[in-house]
Amino acid sequence: MTRFMDVHHGMQGITAQQLQQGHDATAAVEAEEGVHFEHAWADPESGTVYCLSEGPSADAVKRAHERGGGGVPDEIHSVPLTV
Amino acid sequence: MTRFMDVHHGMQGITAQQLQQGHDATAAVEAEEGVHFEHAWADPESGTVYCLSEGPSADAVKRAHERGGGGVPDEIHSVPLTV
Repeated sequence: MTRFMDVHHGMQGITAQQLQQGHDATAAVEAEEGVHFEHAWADPESGTVYCLSEGPSADAVKRAHERGGGGVPDEIHSVPLTV
Repeated sequence: MTRFMDVHHGMQGITAQQLQQGHDATAAVEAEEGVHFEHAWADPESGTVYCLSEGPSADAVKRAHERGGGGVPDEIHSVPLTV
């Protein structure tokens, strides 16, 4: 399992409820993709959302987003180093 | 206190030891700036580092990076929403 950070742009005005709904929707397909979303942080002003996940591949993380209706992230990076 | 996510680019080849040293160096000036760095995640391949912090302002987070020798982040966003 690898840890990933992905970034969504263009999410101006996102609410706490919408962020929670996106998290819940992806949770429903996590098991099938072998992906777990740990956290997400959102800046409604700039429209930026960061998602921290663990999964077998960047493609699996993208699919989990897509199938959960959360939109495909604009960037995704494996982040093997953590402090 | 506000939560911030900042991003550093151009950090290709960063090692776990360098990430830890950066974290320790900023920890030394945290109290003076009123900033606390919670976590950092690094992708040595693309050279991207994400830092999650809490502080009174984006300027305080930037100063803590600068004074700690960690380099000024390329992007910084307040992230009031979390899941």
